[in-house]
Amino acid sequence: MDPKDLRDLLESVAGGRTLPTEAFERLKNLPFEDLGFAKVDHHRALRRGFPEAVFGSGKTPEQIVAIVGRIVSRGQSALVTRTTAAVHGLIAESHPGARWHESARLVSIEGRPQIPLPGRVAIVCAGTSDIPVAEEAAVTASFLGASVERVFDVGVAGLHRLLSRAEVLREADVVVVAAGMEGALPSVIAGLVEAPVIAVPTSVGYGASFQGLAALLAMLNSCACGVSVVNIDNGFGAGHLAAMILRGRAAS
Amino acid sequence: MDPKDLRDLLESVAGGRTLPTEAFERLKNLPFEDLGFAKVDHHRALRRGFPEAVFGSGKTPEQIVAIVGRIVSRGQSALVTRTTAAVHGLIAESHPGARWHESARLVSIEGRPQIPLPGRVAIVCAGTSDIPVAEEAAVTASFLGASVERVFDVGVAGLHRLLSRAEVLREADVVVVAAGMEGALPSVIAGLVEAPVIAVPTSVGYGASFQGLAALLAMLNSCACGVSVVNIDNGFGAGHLAAMILRGRAAS
Amino acid sequence: MDPKDLRDLLESVAGGRTLPTEAFERLKNLPFEDLGFAKVDHHRALRRGFPEAVFGSGKTPEQIVAIVGRIVSRGQSALVTRTTAAVHGLIAESHPGARWHESARLVSIEGRPQIPLPGRVAIVCAGTSDIPVAEEAAVTASFLGASVERVFDVGVAGLHRLLSRAEVLREADVVVVAAGMEGALPSVIAGLVEAPVIAVPTSVGYGASFQGLAALLAMLNSCACGVSVVNIDNGFGAGHLAAMILRGRAAS
Amino acid sequence: MDPKDLRDLLESVAGGRTLPTEAFERLKNLPFEDLGFAKVDHHRALRRGFPEAVFGSGKTPEQIVAIVGRIVSRGQSALVTRTTAAVHGLIAESHPGARWHESARLVSIEGRPQIPLPGRVAIVCAGTSDIPVAEEAAVTASFLGASVERVFDVGVAGLHRLLSRAEVLREADVVVVAAGMEGALPSVIAGLVEAPVIAVPTSVGYGASFQGLAALLAMLNSCACGVSVVNIDNGFGAGHLAAMILRGRAAS
Amino acid sequence: MDPKDLRDLLESVAGGRTLPTEAFERLKNLPFEDLGFAKVDHHRALRRGFPEAVFGSGKTPEQIVAIVGRIVSRGQSALVTRTTAAVHGLIAESHPGARWHESARLVSIEGRPQIPLPGRVAIVCAGTSDIPVAEEAAVTASFLGASVERVFDVGVAGLHRLLSRAEVLREADVVVVAAGMEGALPSVIAGLVEAPVIAVPTSVGYGASFQGLAALLAMLNSCACGVSVVNIDNGFGAGHLAAMILRGRAAS
Amino acid sequence: MDPKDLRDLLESVAGGRTLPTEAFERLKNLPFEDLGFAKVDHHRALRRGFPEAVFGSGKTPEQIVAIVGRIVSRGQSALVTRTTAAVHGLIAESHPGARWHESARLVSIEGRPQIPLPGRVAIVCAGTSDIPVAEEAAVTASFLGASVERVFDVGVAGLHRLLSRAEVLREADVVVVAAGMEGALPSVIAGLVEAPVIAVPTSVGYGASFQGLAALLAMLNSCACGVSVVNIDNGFGAGHLAAMILRGRAAS
Amino acid sequence: MDPKDLRDLLESVAGGRTLPTEAFERLKNLPFEDLGFAKVDHHRALRRGFPEAVFGSGKTPEQIVAIVGRIVSRGQSALVTRTTAAVHGLIAESHPGARWHESARLVSIEGRPQIPLPGRVAIVCAGTSDIPVAEEAAVTASFLGASVERVFDVGVAGLHRLLSRAEVLREADVVVVAAGMEGALPSVIAGLVEAPVIAVPTSVGYGASFQGLAALLAMLNSCACGVSVVNIDNGFGAGHLAAMILRGRAAS
Amino acid sequence: MDPKDLRDLLESVAGGRTLPTEAFERLKNLPFEDLGFAKVDHHRALRRGFPEAVFGSGKTPEQIVAIVGRIVSRGQSALVTRTTAAVHGLIAESHPGARWHESARLVSIEGRPQIPLPGRVAIVCAGTSDIPVAEEAAVTASFLGASVERVFDVGVAGLHRLLSRAEVLREADVVVVAAGMEGALPSVIAGLVEAPVIAVPTSVGYGASFQGLAALLAMLNSCACGVSVVNIDNGFGAGHLAAMILRGRAAS
Repeated sequence: MDPKDLRDLLESVAGGRTLPTEAFERLKNLPFEDLGFAKVDHHRALRRGFPEAVFGSGKTPEQIVAIVGRIVSRGQSALVTRTTAAVHGLIAESHPGARWHESARLVSIEGRPQIPLPGRVAIVCAGTSDIPVAEEAAVTASFLGASVERVFDVGVAGLHRLLSRAEVLREADVVVVAAGMEGALPSVIAGLVEAPVIAVPTSVGYGASFQGLAALLAMLNSCACGVSVVNIDNGFGAGHLAAMILRGRAAS
Repeated sequence: MDPKDLRDLLESVAGGRTLPTEAFERLKNLPFEDLGFAKVDHHRALRRGFPEAVFGSGKTPEQIVAIVGRIVSRGQSALVTRTTAAVHGLIAESHPGARWHESARLVSIEGRPQIPLPGRVAIVCAGTSDIPVAEEAAVTASFLGASVERVFDVGVAGLHRLLSRAEVLREADVVVVAAGMEGALPSVIAGLVEAPVIAVPTSVGYGASFQGLAALLAMLNSCACGVSVVNIDNGFGAGHLAAMILRGRAAS
Repeated sequence: MDPKDLRDLLESVAGGRTLPTEAFERLKNLPFEDLGFAKVDHHRALRRGFPEAVFGSGKTPEQIVAIVGRIVSRGQSALVTRTTAAVHGLIAESHPGARWHESARLVSIEGRPQIPLPGRVAIVCAGTSDIPVAEEAAVTASFLGASVERVFDVGVAGLHRLLSRAEVLREADVVVVAAGMEGALPSVIAGLVEAPVIAVPTSVGYGASFQGLAALLAMLNSCACGVSVVNIDNGFGAGHLAAMILRGRAAS
Repeated sequence: MDPKDLRDLLESVAGGRTLPTEAFERLKNLPFEDLGFAKVDHHRALRRGFPEAVFGSGKTPEQIVAIVGRIVSRGQSALVTRTTAAVHGLIAESHPGARWHESARLVSIEGRPQIPLPGRVAIVCAGTSDIPVAEEAAVTASFLGASVERVFDVGVAGLHRLLSRAEVLREADVVVVAAGMEGALPSVIAGLVEAPVIAVPTSVGYGASFQGLAALLAMLNSCACGVSVVNIDNGFGAGHLAAMILRGRAAS
Repeated sequence: MDPKDLRDLLESVAGGRTLPTEAFERLKNLPFEDLGFAKVDHHRALRRGFPEAVFGSGKTPEQIVAIVGRIVSRGQSALVTRTTAAVHGLIAESHPGARWHESARLVSIEGRPQIPLPGRVAIVCAGTSDIPVAEEAAVTASFLGASVERVFDVGVAGLHRLLSRAEVLREADVVVVAAGMEGALPSVIAGLVEAPVIAVPTSVGYGASFQGLAALLAMLNSCACGVSVVNIDNGFGAGHLAAMILRGRAAS
Repeated sequence: MDPKDLRDLLESVAGGRTLPTEAFERLKNLPFEDLGFAKVDHHRALRRGFPEAVFGSGKTPEQIVAIVGRIVSRGQSALVTRTTAAVHGLIAESHPGARWHESARLVSIEGRPQIPLPGRVAIVCAGTSDIPVAEEAAVTASFLGASVERVFDVGVAGLHRLLSRAEVLREADVVVVAAGMEGALPSVIAGLVEAPVIAVPTSVGYGASFQGLAALLAMLNSCACGVSVVNIDNGFGAGHLAAMILRGRAAS
Repeated sequence: MDPKDLRDLLESVAGGRTLPTEAFERLKNLPFEDLGFAKVDHHRALRRGFPEAVFGSGKTPEQIVAIVGRIVSRGQSALVTRTTAAVHGLIAESHPGARWHESARLVSIEGRPQIPLPGRVAIVCAGTSDIPVAEEAAVTASFLGASVERVFDVGVAGLHRLLSRAEVLREADVVVVAAGMEGALPSVIAGLVEAPVIAVPTSVGYGASFQGLAALLAMLNSCACGVSVVNIDNGFGAGHLAAMILRGRAAS
Repeated sequence: MDPKDLRDLLESVAGGRTLPTEAFERLKNLPFEDLGFAKVDHHRALRRGFPEAVFGSGKTPEQIVAIVGRIVSRGQSALVTRTTAAVHGLIAESHPGARWHESARLVSIEGRPQIPLPGRVAIVCAGTSDIPVAEEAAVTASFLGASVERVFDVGVAGLHRLLSRAEVLREADVVVVAAGMEGALPSVIAGLVEAPVIAVPTSVGYGASFQGLAALLAMLNSCACGVSVVNIDNGFGAGHLAAMILRGRAAS
């Protein structure tokens, strides 16, 4: 509820066009729908400018299908993250256009077409095992309108593979870097490019990687400027943030 | 050394205008100056588009003064972070224009004037004790050309104080949020704005805050979209990244 | 064994109405029953004023059924937490009135009816995945006589959803708040209400949530007054404590 | 700002007694004073029913004195926690009635007299070294109107000392228990009393106490019902919560 | 190889009764058998005075059976810990006297009868879920000749249950205490008895128990004298140490 | 208060020799003296058979002197641990016989002479820097009547130094082993001796020793039988436990 | 791409034998093959002097087979680590010479025969459960040309078993030591030999071993000179490093 | 004591040239000197081939001087690490040739000249603040006879600075890499060279570097082959190990 709406409402009350009790109700109830176990926030899509995403993990298939149903019924697009082919099957029964992104473990249902964002996001990953997280970022950013370039399997132990793709990296407007194990890749890339680097630690590794903690700490301690970090394996968050940064450019 | 330079150099060799041995030397020695204990990277200012910053902590005053001297001698601006009034005094002996930013613990020496960046950065902090970190971010972003708005002491336990500043936050193009203790502020703000939120955990707190670990973990686990995180107390990194995001808008 | 009982016993000995050896036996053996693998404490229900609860996890179905049998045989109510539908089935064979609370994973067997407690407990949760923990708290508090109001899916990233329920929260006498991920909700709510807030971190999240550690630390570091914390996922403990606080009001 | 105020305001606008722009201003600016480095929340005292407390650690003496000045100038009482005799000296210059509580490291300035709360709080500590934390709780609860009973140095290794005070504990309406080292005392006490137990881990100990982590974890894992936990060394929070629980009884 | 043996051997060489090369072989090869994947140490039983124990976890059934076979073939007793009924079945094929201890998850094969040790060990546990660990201790101590008294389900939240068994505890010569969750029981018991207390943290609990870490830290920080700690769930180690302490009494 | 006393008291009441109210008082007040900040437990010396020890750290010099005064006034011996030469000076003013143990940081005041315990304790340490902890153990055990043998600077990297003292170790009835860094010494020694080994991790080390955590974990995971562990740097606890084990032998 | 190649290329351009654009392409594309999900680095074998190894964990069987196919098609040898018999089966379909190393969980495919390295590697492990890690090291080192000596089940609790193999250890040029639990073995061995010791902590253990953390920390804190550490369970890394050290000797 | 010595001794006994009791004494007492607080191991220099080093931290100046005195009195060289200029002053009183290495915080006293080792060690560090640790490694390796090349301030965020020194790195036989913060440098370098890389995490950094833990974990999880790790800030250990590896080449 932004200041302009508030002013309009108050003037409407002052002008006798709205009763105080009505105004109270409107102030109290911002637009979301209550499904009991979840409150679907139709307003958010407008407020934040992007379609709604549903975090699939920890929700039952029935809950996911119900939430998606409410979103789509308004003509909006929806993204379901951390989900399974089985859930995709359930969704596809009512929404045949729903797509299953295997390695990203995502379902996307496109409502009204997303406006393309200016610029480009490079999605980089260090090793083959980091691809699912990188794909989650790539599909998310694409879904939100971004143009995406993938640069996979370019870990720091083989600098020549990385440097062979330096041009692509330098031309990107935002760089998402997913890496597990020692998590060094974002630091090296941030030293090569001028764009912001969104680092995604992955849980790839074993032993003293402690499920991604080693990579997370390495990225937080990056000696390079321009690196910020999201949660371990949070490809969705990285892709979303990348699209937000591009959207800002669209607005400027 | 970008691809175009490389091509030009090779053509110059092919055209006989450059000897192979000379070319080899140029390829091998990219432009930085070696002070023995430090390599001053004059090239970086050009490459990354921003003046050089010197991380003061862990360097002797003599080392800092020497590094600053080399940077400034080329007409470039310099920023010294995590430093003291005493070091500022030493620097000011040769560079009278050096400024001391008390609460940010920074010295800035302006060489050629920085080109103003488009848009605006809001720098928010949760409590009075978080101000030094927030100021480090604010002074850094300003120094790099950003227009900065400060919103201080708006912790989540007093939502009305935060909401009274919601307009300022919504109009910002990037929001930096510094918070210690439970680190909840970035999540709440990210739910209110459309801009990217750079979260800076601070070491403010005691007991189970574990020197900022609690705030760091909370920020990494933010349930809101658009939040990324830098190291504990890393106001410099947050301010720098904010300016980079604005610079991207300038370029678009 | 409270001081009054002790005095009575000693006077009974002094008056020759009780033999010293008998008194010794009574002092030594307070009333509980020994099943070998467990000591069922019939006295606790009286002493603490609430029915006995059995922590189901780590006990065999046979052990649970035996313990429940002893409690119910005295006409007391029983609650089995962290259990399964299968165990409910076993219990229901002898106690047909036993109820299965699916999302709370609890079995309740009502003996003598619980006296209603004054006031009201609000049970709040941040997201759909936190519902099982919130339900454990809600069913427990209800079982102990409290009047319960549920406020679900009101995470801090959508403040308007939370604020739309502010009235319910402000009217509660105790607020239980279950949240995973960044665990910010108790701090925000404690800033809105005058009642004590019992924070329950949940293990909902991934990566750097470290199975609820992030939420736990955030809650312990709350900048708001009136927040105290129970173990991760300990909905039972929170609901029980809420009922104890209401019982205190009954007594006053 | 509660619903009733909102309704009144809207009716006043509808009735032409308040201009929409004025109403907007009032809605936007809830009552706090902005000192630049801090926002003093005069409203909180009303809203939460208790005087304002200033967390002294991490603030300069000048900042503390300024904040206290604003609070006291409205006739309200103030409490400064985690502070020093020197800060007390500075405060006492303008507020001669300011009291210094040595072992609790608190300054209290009484404005209008606090209304006595019903019931009684027992403040317990395990060892002599835990006294400062226990005193912080005791002075805070007293300051907020609670009647306080101290039970000190009754660690679990000498049960007879604890049991000799059992009567006092059983008659309390809330029990605050501060303990370091193994943090076992709250569990033992919660098994003896019917009142809620607020456990305060202290940083007393060495080696594997890890500055109170051992006691914190022990208290969170208490096998006894009715225990909740605040941050390590957070005597203020425990005392404040205890007073809030008593206030609830006053209201019922 | 103790000094006396060494002296004898050297004198035998000096006396010409043993060749130097033979002596060298004997010095180099102390008596154990090499199975390739394991070295069975027949000497240890003599040296340490107790039968050999085989830690079953992480060994294949075939490896366990082979090792047990070598031990038993010398007439010695053997104990297999952390094993399964299936492994017991395999062992029993060749050693029909092998016993399966269900709740302790142990197989015992008695060779020559163990000499009874003087004194008595009390094995205590806090809750029903701690019984497997307590039983591992109890069976181990019995197997090594100790007289064992079990005191189960006497957690600190019900002191009267514990105190009702105080006499048994005070008469024990060593007390083994297994407890999970907050791990307070060893501290309370050590305050009641004069004997050494061997504390065994168990992994019983959830959330912030961190698989027994909470109990482990609590026990290491015990405020009571006479407590020492073994690894989480290490009932075998506790029972073995208890028997060693009694054996020392036998020797004195 | 042991069962026999309880029986006697009850018979005395039954026989009319004691009034019930008197009996109640005696039951309620076991013998300790309350200094306000501390409860001095004169009974403990009798109950546990050893003089009282005062943990000096975290107590003011005045508190220590007062507590010591009460203990000594009853003719009992006292030990003050973790203290300073300055505190010794203060104590020596009233108790000229008080001894200062420099490297152990202990003050001992001998009241009635301690009865010598049978057997012998070997106190071993790995490096020169571990001596203060080893001395704390040695002085404590001696003070309680044990005969002590010191074996210092025998770390595992120089096995021949350790083996040269093997005889002394094998003849000991209890072995206390203090080691920092990798904490391997107790495992190696436990493989050489038949006596119980009390392992004391020390905070000696740097970097990944994490103030003794590495040594602590190593000792808890010892692959050798007969090792139990006390808190980091807890020489007092180890020495006390060693004496308790010898005392058990005296009793048998 | 080493300096000599660069010089040659530039001279070729200068001599007109290579076009600048060709040179640019060659500089940009160092020799690796892009399979989309992985970049196979044929150059590495040359550059690093050893065959390529494929880390099997986290890759699909199809990905592994494809990568192996590309390596082998060039006549090079390949090693697949952390894999299964099933993957071996798939590989063996196209490469019948592929060998399955059961306890090391490795597949090796020998292309051109490896040149034998000078010297010898001793591979030591503490217990039977550490064998898989030790075997991973042994097979890797052998595969790279090293002569390997296995010394298994020689934990520190049985020094005589270790010392009986001391000669083998002293004659080795590099010693790899795998140990879980307390991780003491590398320290003891480093005190006995003159060669570098590569310590491999294993995840063998339970409770406070925290999946190998205890052993890792112990090894990092070794009091013996010449010990360095690789990741938990990283037998491959240890074997590879051992071979690299021997290769250095070959070169000298 | 190696096998040959043992055989000789036994033959001498057999031949009547040595009495059994004498032989026993010689076996028991290997050559070290006992200063009470330390055992100086003259034998180690011979056994391990390198001079003795004294870890200065945690020893008193007097202890250091005494130990150094004993070493030097035998004509051997000595190295004192982690020490101060003041201790150097004390040592220089008796040993005027003692040298103080300021940034490495080392004192070296050269006895008989060290034999030069073949090959070369490159000592690399990431930033200026890592120099003390790198210098500790460099001085140690030099002292033991190695030829050392320093490559300082070549962090991964400025790859061109690192690559400009690639030739020096590739020609080294062992590379020691000291880095704090994100600890990425060893991984990048190991991808460039064929020699073993000894990684030294430093405690340089702040916040989530947790005193070097971030760098330590990153290095342990290196995706590059040939990296092993020593303790945080353990420059001495790295330099010593580097020299040991070179010594192995000397022997081959």
